[in-house]
Amino acid sequence: MMPTGESETGRLEAFSDGVLAVIITIMALELKAPVEGTFRSLRDRLPSLLIYILSFTLIGIYWNNHHHLLRAARRMTAGVMWANLHLLFWLSLIPVLTEWVGEHYTKDAPAATYGFVLLCAALAFIILTRAIIRADGSSSLVAEAIGRDVKGRVSLAIYVAATVLAFVSPWISYALFVTVAVIWFVPDRRFASR
Amino acid sequence: MMPTGESETGRLEAFSDGVLAVIITIMALELKAPVEGTFRSLRDRLPSLLIYILSFTLIGIYWNNHHHLLRAARRMTAGVMWANLHLLFWLSLIPVLTEWVGEHYTKDAPAATYGFVLLCAALAFIILTRAIIRADGSSSLVAEAIGRDVKGRVSLAIYVAATVLAFVSPWISYALFVTVAVIWFVPDRRFASR
Amino acid sequence: MMPTGESETGRLEAFSDGVLAVIITIMALELKAPVEGTFRSLRDRLPSLLIYILSFTLIGIYWNNHHHLLRAARRMTAGVMWANLHLLFWLSLIPVLTEWVGEHYTKDAPAATYGFVLLCAALAFIILTRAIIRADGSSSLVAEAIGRDVKGRVSLAIYVAATVLAFVSPWISYALFVTVAVIWFVPDRRFASR
Amino acid sequence: MMPTGESETGRLEAFSDGVLAVIITIMALELKAPVEGTFRSLRDRLPSLLIYILSFTLIGIYWNNHHHLLRAARRMTAGVMWANLHLLFWLSLIPVLTEWVGEHYTKDAPAATYGFVLLCAALAFIILTRAIIRADGSSSLVAEAIGRDVKGRVSLAIYVAATVLAFVSPWISYALFVTVAVIWFVPDRRFASR
Repeated sequence: MMPTGESETGRLEAFSDGVLAVIITIMALELKAPVEGTFRSLRDRLPSLLIYILSFTLIGIYWNNHHHLLRAARRMTAGVMWANLHLLFWLSLIPVLTEWVGEHYTKDAPAATYGFVLLCAALAFIILTRAIIRADGSSSLVAEAIGRDVKGRVSLAIYVAATVLAFVSPWISYALFVTVAVIWFVPDRRFASR
Repeated sequence: MMPTGESETGRLEAFSDGVLAVIITIMALELKAPVEGTFRSLRDRLPSLLIYILSFTLIGIYWNNHHHLLRAARRMTAGVMWANLHLLFWLSLIPVLTEWVGEHYTKDAPAATYGFVLLCAALAFIILTRAIIRADGSSSLVAEAIGRDVKGRVSLAIYVAATVLAFVSPWISYALFVTVAVIWFVPDRRFASR
Repeated sequence: MMPTGESETGRLEAFSDGVLAVIITIMALELKAPVEGTFRSLRDRLPSLLIYILSFTLIGIYWNNHHHLLRAARRMTAGVMWANLHLLFWLSLIPVLTEWVGEHYTKDAPAATYGFVLLCAALAFIILTRAIIRADGSSSLVAEAIGRDVKGRVSLAIYVAATVLAFVSPWISYALFVTVAVIWFVPDRRFASR
Repeated sequence: MMPTGESETGRLEAFSDGVLAVIITIMALELKAPVEGTFRSLRDRLPSLLIYILSFTLIGIYWNNHHHLLRAARRMTAGVMWANLHLLFWLSLIPVLTEWVGEHYTKDAPAATYGFVLLCAALAFIILTRAIIRADGSSSLVAEAIGRDVKGRVSLAIYVAATVLAFVSPWISYALFVTVAVIWFVPDRRFASR
C-alpha cells in the first residue's frame, strides 16, 4: 500500500488530462455550425475559428508544461491537489470566454477578461509549481529545473499588459496573446532534457 | 489473471475520474457567454459564476476524498461498483442544478433541490465507504481510517438544514453550502497521512 | 515491445471508459434546467429525470459488464477493436434518444426507437464477446465463463418485445426496459468470481 | 526518474484518448432529438445520422491507427507532442463540420470544407509519423513498419479529389469519403502483426 512517486502522481495526471481533454474539445463544440451551407456563412465564423486556434494552442501549452512539471514531481499533498484544481478552475473558464471573444472581438471587455483569466491561470501554474517544490523538499528536481523561471515572469507581464491595453484596442491584446503562445511553443528546455 | 488490489481498483478510478472531469468541465460550458460585449453584461453572469465556483469546489472535494478512499481500498465487488455509480449519479445532477440555481438564485426551490442532491451525494459517499469496508473485511484500512467520521456526519446535518432553511431564505442555504466546502477543504487527515 | 495481455487491452479499456464516461455525463447535460425557479417547474422535468435514471442505469450495466469482459480478455485484434467501436456507436445514440423519449414519453416512436437501439447495443455486446473468444482461442477464459449466456438471450427477447409493444403502449416498453435493468443489476456471476 | 518508452508515451496516449473519446461522443450530442415524437420526425434526422456514422467511423479509424502508431513509438519529444496536438486540432473540427454537413447535405461548401479538414488531418497524421521516426532514430520500428505508406498516399489523393469534386456534386464527395473509410477499415497490417 506504500505508493511510489509515479503512482502517487498518476491519478492527478489522469484527472487533469481528462479535464484538459474536455476543455479543448468543448471549445470546438462552441464553434457553432455556420447558419447557411455557403462559404460566405463559413467566413462569418472566421473570428471564432481564429480565437479557437489561439485558445487551443494556449491549452495545449498548459498540457505540455503540466505534463513536464508532474513528471518531475515526486510527492502529492493536499496542497498540490488543491493548487492543481485551482489551475484547472481558471482553465475551465477559457471555453466560455473563447465563445464570448469570438462573438464580440471588436469590444474591449471580452479581450480584457480573457487576458485577466489567462493571467490568473499563469499565476495558478506558478502556485502549483511552488506547492510541488514544497511537497518534494529542497532537493526537488522541479526546484533545480525551474531556476529563475524567466518565461513565467515574462508571460505574467505580457498578460497584465494585454488586460490593460485591451481598453486602448483589443487588437493589441490579441497580438500579445499570440506573442505568449510563440514564447511557450517549445516546451520548457528546463524539463525537456530530463 | 489474479489482479492485485491496485489494478482491481484502477479502472474504477479511471472511469470515476472521467465522469468527474466531464462533470466539472460541463458546468463551465453551461456558463453561457455574456450576451453583449460589455462588463455590464458580464456582471449579469456573476451569480452563475459564484454558484459555479461553489459547485466546482464541492466536486473537487469529492474528487479528493474519492481519490483517498480508493487508494485505501483493496477489493472491488459488484456492491462497490454500484455504490460508486450511485455516487456518480447524484454528482451528475449537479451541473444542471448549478445552472438552475444560477438563473433563479433568489428562489427557494432551486436552493432546496441543490441542498437535497448534495445530501443524497453525501449519503452515497457514506454508502460507498461502507461497501468498500465490507469488501475488504474487518482489517480494512478504510475502516481503521474512517473511525467515527465526524466530518461526514456534520456535513449531512448541514445539508439537511440547508435544504429545509432554503424555504426561509435561500441565502441561508448558500452560507451553509460554503460552510461545508470550508470544512472539507483540507482532505481527510485520516487518509492523507497514508 | 512485446506487450502483455494487460497492456494490450489497457488502451481499449481507457478509450471505452472515456466514451462511456462522456455518454453518461452528457445525458445529464441534456436534462435542461427547469424554466422557472419553482417546484412546479421542476415537476415538469420529472419524466426526463426518470428516463435519465433508466439510461444511466443501463449504461452503468454496460460499463460493469464491459469491465468484467475485458478483464477476462487476453488478446486484442482488429476485429475486437472494431467490435468494441460498434458497441460504443449504439451506446452513443442513447443520450439523444433519452432526450427524445423524455420530451415525448406518451408517443410510440421514441419508445420503439429506444428499444431498437438497446437491441442493437445488446447484439453488439454479443458480437464483441464472440470477437474476443475468437482472438483468445478455444482456451479462452471468456468462452468458459460465458457458457450458455442465458441473461444475454433473455435481454434480446425482451428488447424485441419492447420495440414491438411500444406500438400498443409505450408504458409496456418502459416496464420491459426496467425489467432488463433489474435482471442485469447484479453483474455477471460468471465473471464476478474471478 | 528515467522513464521507459512505455511510460513516456503513456500520458500522450491517455490525453489523445480523452480528446478522441470526447470528440466521438460530442458528435452524438449534436444529433438533435427529433422535434416531434413521430417516425416522420425521426426520418428528418436521417442525413444527420448518416454523416454521423461516417464521422464516427473516420474518428474510429484514427483512434485505431493512432493506437498502433504510438505502440510502436519509443521516445517522446516536444516535436512529437506538438505534432500530436496538431492532429487533434484538425480532428476537433470534425464534430462541428458533421453538424454543418448534416444540416446542408445538398450544398457544396460543407462537403468541400469537410473534405479539406479530413485532408489536413491526414497530413497531420503523416507529420506525426515523421516526428516519431525522427525522435526514435533510424532504427525506428515505425520507420521499418511504415515502408512506402501506400494507404496514406491514396487517402490524401482521395481527399483532394473529394474537396474539389464537391463543387461538381457533394454526392461524389460523400462516395469518396466512404471509399476512404472502407480502405482503412482494417487497421494497418504493417503494425497489426506486432
